[in-house]
Amino acid sequence: MTSTAKLCAVCVLILLFIVCAQAQQKPCLTASKFGPEDQIGNVNYITPAKTLAATKLVTKGKAYRLGIETNKDTPAYPPRTFAVTIVQPGQNAGGSLGPTKTNYNDDLINGWAGIGSQIDGLGHIGIDNLFYNCNKSADFAMTDGLKKLGVEHVPAVATRGVLLDMAGYFNTDIVKEGTAFNRAEIEGAMKRQGIKSIEKGDVVLFYTGWLKLLGKDNKRYGSVGPGLGRDGAKYLASLEVAMIGTDTWAFEVVPFEKDAGIFEVHQILIPLNGIHVLENMNTEEMVKDQAWEFLFTLGPARITGGVQAIINPIAIK
Amino acid sequence: MTSTAKLCAVCVLILLFIVCAQAQQKPCLTASKFGPEDQIGNVNYITPAKTLAATKLVTKGKAYRLGIETNKDTPAYPPRTFAVTIVQPGQNAGGSLGPTKTNYNDDLINGWAGIGSQIDGLGHIGIDNLFYNCNKSADFAMTDGLKKLGVEHVPAVATRGVLLDMAGYFNTDIVKEGTAFNRAEIEGAMKRQGIKSIEKGDVVLFYTGWLKLLGKDNKRYGSVGPGLGRDGAKYLASLEVAMIGTDTWAFEVVPFEKDAGIFEVHQILIPLNGIHVLENMNTEEMVKDQAWEFLFTLGPARITGGVQAIINPIAIK
Amino acid sequence: MTSTAKLCAVCVLILLFIVCAQAQQKPCLTASKFGPEDQIGNVNYITPAKTLAATKLVTKGKAYRLGIETNKDTPAYPPRTFAVTIVQPGQNAGGSLGPTKTNYNDDLINGWAGIGSQIDGLGHIGIDNLFYNCNKSADFAMTDGLKKLGVEHVPAVATRGVLLDMAGYFNTDIVKEGTAFNRAEIEGAMKRQGIKSIEKGDVVLFYTGWLKLLGKDNKRYGSVGPGLGRDGAKYLASLEVAMIGTDTWAFEVVPFEKDAGIFEVHQILIPLNGIHVLENMNTEEMVKDQAWEFLFTLGPARITGGVQAIINPIAIK
Amino acid sequence: MTSTAKLCAVCVLILLFIVCAQAQQKPCLTASKFGPEDQIGNVNYITPAKTLAATKLVTKGKAYRLGIETNKDTPAYPPRTFAVTIVQPGQNAGGSLGPTKTNYNDDLINGWAGIGSQIDGLGHIGIDNLFYNCNKSADFAMTDGLKKLGVEHVPAVATRGVLLDMAGYFNTDIVKEGTAFNRAEIEGAMKRQGIKSIEKGDVVLFYTGWLKLLGKDNKRYGSVGPGLGRDGAKYLASLEVAMIGTDTWAFEVVPFEKDAGIFEVHQILIPLNGIHVLENMNTEEMVKDQAWEFLFTLGPARITGGVQAIINPIAIK
Repeated sequence: MTSTAKLCAVCVLILLFIVCAQAQQKPCLTASKFGPEDQIGNVNYITPAKTLAATKLVTKGKAYRLGIETNKDTPAYPPRTFAVTIVQPGQNAGGSLGPTKTNYNDDLINGWAGIGSQIDGLGHIGIDNLFYNCNKSADFAMTDGLKKLGVEHVPAVATRGVLLDMAGYFNTDIVKEGTAFNRAEIEGAMKRQGIKSIEKGDVVLFYTGWLKLLGKDNKRYGSVGPGLGRDGAKYLASLEVAMIGTDTWAFEVVPFEKDAGIFEVHQILIPLNGIHVLENMNTEEMVKDQAWEFLFTLGPARITGGVQAIINPIAIK
Repeated sequence: MTSTAKLCAVCVLILLFIVCAQAQQKPCLTASKFGPEDQIGNVNYITPAKTLAATKLVTKGKAYRLGIETNKDTPAYPPRTFAVTIVQPGQNAGGSLGPTKTNYNDDLINGWAGIGSQIDGLGHIGIDNLFYNCNKSADFAMTDGLKKLGVEHVPAVATRGVLLDMAGYFNTDIVKEGTAFNRAEIEGAMKRQGIKSIEKGDVVLFYTGWLKLLGKDNKRYGSVGPGLGRDGAKYLASLEVAMIGTDTWAFEVVPFEKDAGIFEVHQILIPLNGIHVLENMNTEEMVKDQAWEFLFTLGPARITGGVQAIINPIAIK
Repeated sequence: MTSTAKLCAVCVLILLFIVCAQAQQKPCLTASKFGPEDQIGNVNYITPAKTLAATKLVTKGKAYRLGIETNKDTPAYPPRTFAVTIVQPGQNAGGSLGPTKTNYNDDLINGWAGIGSQIDGLGHIGIDNLFYNCNKSADFAMTDGLKKLGVEHVPAVATRGVLLDMAGYFNTDIVKEGTAFNRAEIEGAMKRQGIKSIEKGDVVLFYTGWLKLLGKDNKRYGSVGPGLGRDGAKYLASLEVAMIGTDTWAFEVVPFEKDAGIFEVHQILIPLNGIHVLENMNTEEMVKDQAWEFLFTLGPARITGGVQAIINPIAIK
Repeated sequence: MTSTAKLCAVCVLILLFIVCAQAQQKPCLTASKFGPEDQIGNVNYITPAKTLAATKLVTKGKAYRLGIETNKDTPAYPPRTFAVTIVQPGQNAGGSLGPTKTNYNDDLINGWAGIGSQIDGLGHIGIDNLFYNCNKSADFAMTDGLKKLGVEHVPAVATRGVLLDMAGYFNTDIVKEGTAFNRAEIEGAMKRQGIKSIEKGDVVLFYTGWLKLLGKDNKRYGSVGPGLGRDGAKYLASLEVAMIGTDTWAFEVVPFEKDAGIFEVHQILIPLNGIHVLENMNTEEMVKDQAWEFLFTLGPARITGGVQAIINPIAIK
């Protein structure tokens, strides 16, 4: 070994040492503020007091279902597909069961959970294979179900909901694709609607009119969209909201902001801040009714180890 | 043709005429009181006034998720099966997307909707191929999805919930299989708990302790059970409740009551009265808290043409 | 009861008696000539002697695969759908197994067996709920698999194949939709090609050029076609062939012949004669090579209780 | 920048250069001898002359199906699952189609292709994410189907088959788990059976009696087994066989040989030598008949982008 080679070897070792030392000193990038066992993130902020206060927002008793329909024609991120199959077991040839001639239909689902209205669980998005709360892909993302961070862990959600009418803010029917909602737009919309604050444990929904394209221009609907920007995501994270939703498929603005990563807004919210993301939330009728602050309830189907879930939250004003 | 043969032919014609005439005079057995287009039954009774009143029942802000987990090991009515599959599209060999190294998990569902906590939609049960509101099987139950009565039609459900503690009523941990809940038992449980009335548009839940068997004695859990009887079903239908649920797989008492048809209680409720049925509702913690009257919310995933749905209702006390 | 009513009752009884008596005397319409336990039909005719003779037809050693590809874009009879999903279990984040860094892909199939090149098993087609060999739908067609007549019963098929070039016979590239192949056309094609006989236990394939439309005009491809007619089916059944195939999706002529039932040719072959049907058999290259008589081999995947199977027979000339 | 840091930077650059240069000089580990476009490996050796010669091996005309049944109870490598579902579209309530009352059953498959008798395609196994013929996982293994090396590419297989009776060689009914078949055992079995040679383009099958355990001791069946060893794999690869099969689930010996990698024998055959692997080949009856050399035919279902396929090869003696 020449002296140059020796020196080279030495400095490689030094480099390695520096990298390793930094890695040890640095806490895991996605560590939860709720402790090493936490699997639910900011949903922790939804306390009974929070829930009780939210029920006081109900003044008219009008309940809204926020889900759109999921079927084989619902635009979906490739290669997601969906099929439902109806069967009538044991009823061949006009048969029925027993003296009261019971018939029944049953149904099979063969498809992806991420189609239509959906919640992105905390196991959905990672950063270089690191997911929420220091969970590494190889440790929990098994082919037959997530061993941690599955949607079955989401607690009962009943909290204050806030709806931001971005179409109204931009004075348009459908907010244009590529329009990012950042702090200025969020505060502007709040001011316009007379919403005084966004609070810890809230669910914040954005209305853009984008769902008006569904079934009319599925290509445009499913390829681009307005949505949350990075700064807006960080701002809402700083307010410690529990969940954020939009009436678009992508949730975040597409095309992505200049210099932004691919679905970087998802990264800011899900692994970095433990904030669940809701997509394709239909708030059209709520906007018509100016239902800006309301009781938001959600119970995703508890499929063990599921990443996402097809949902249909209920908002009550 | 002999005169006897002629007479025979004549009386066959007369018989046919009588049968046809009766068929025309008789209204369809499952006709809805909400009109020929109705697809939601007694959920119609959940008016804004009803919802508003139900929110007043919330006194502590405690929210309960009623869903149990659904997975391949959840006991299910044969031949129902379930699998979830996790994939990482486009991330082979440690790859990630873009400069911020985005990773994501996605999930596929391959299974039956009737596993775990579930709602039986109005297209689930029929009587001699006649389903709710005069819908004949051949007219709506297509192999690729129900054309009517699908779960996507269920409106936002936010109403008064009433929990009947049948285990408490029978002074036992787990109510014995074959125990039918009829008018006497329902009224007895109400009286014991101080529940004054069951009202139009309510969701009534029965607690039996049966879910304590889950994972411990799946065979017993999934083959028999206590549950609603025919008289009890008719009684609750007379009170015009919106939905009824239990913490059992079968909902109704199994073995069935003497002389009862196969799942005849389901027939009484679903096609004959437009009352949705909820199964495997976990109310254990609510019983501990004596949360007898509460706000019940439910938004089933809106799968177009789905018969049943895996659900996770939220009860708030 | 009046005397007229009595007489009426009596003659109804007499009528019932006659109907019942006839039903008892009449052998079941689909009874097999191979006995009450038979599940394979004319494949019984493929004896070792037959197989041995067929191997003598091989003169060049050229082997042909007759399967077309099956995927989500393959035209299929509605509502059939198809998806394949690739997974890499346990290899998240660039992982591999063990010291030699083993990686593997696995695949899931979610789709219908009747897509692409397929065999129609003897449990596929019935007549008023009566299937091959007196099997009634309710007795064997369970939702989780056929209890009889499943594709797993098909024995090893190695027999004489005969290819009829109907495009050549009609002097065209693609035989026009609605063109029925009956005795005259079959014998005409045989004569033109110098085929002396069709024999017991043979597999007869028809070439029409129809697969040229695949991927070019899927709508035309999958909605109509030339194919076997009723008389042709009866003729080939009289010759006791084992299987018949075409290069079309429907196998039989569509639109159906005047006064024909819906897929009546299938009924003639499958339940009435125990003859398997093969669809979408790609014989293009065989026609170019004038491979008219050859060794035909087929082993369908033995999926227990399967109705159809995606196949890829091997023909050797 | 200090001079040490400069030197360090320089030597890092030098190291990088050396690594890159070596990578360029080194041929890809899995490069095919059949050229950069090859997707079928040693199946290339099955020429018409080879096929023609193989047909001459048929002396009795007895055809064997080598497939076992695939269903939900077939032991499978976790988490593989399988379900078939039978439907009767458009035939609700005893309905049928048209004047001839046509009924039909259809079937859906929801399961993994690697269950029961199967072929491992050349896209199944890799070495550190490198698959056959320099294909990298990220370049071809898409979630919705392999873009290269899919089973749809397997040509018509009709070639000489050789069956090695390892149970006979070891003078036992069922060869013990962990028994490796290497050059000595292969040559010993050949000698015992009077098989003079294994030749280029052959399909070699091993009989061990292991399938006798199926349905009797599924746990033992599916966790261990006798099978091909590394040296045996290299030996058969040196003979340039086309495919190798066994009557076991794992194909290779389990527990693996001392110091062997996980499924290293698969790596030797599939990516390194382009030799397809066949599992769960039922050769029981062939052994009884001493059918040692025969015509082997195989046409896997041509599912586009499929990794494996459920197969049922036909052997003819």
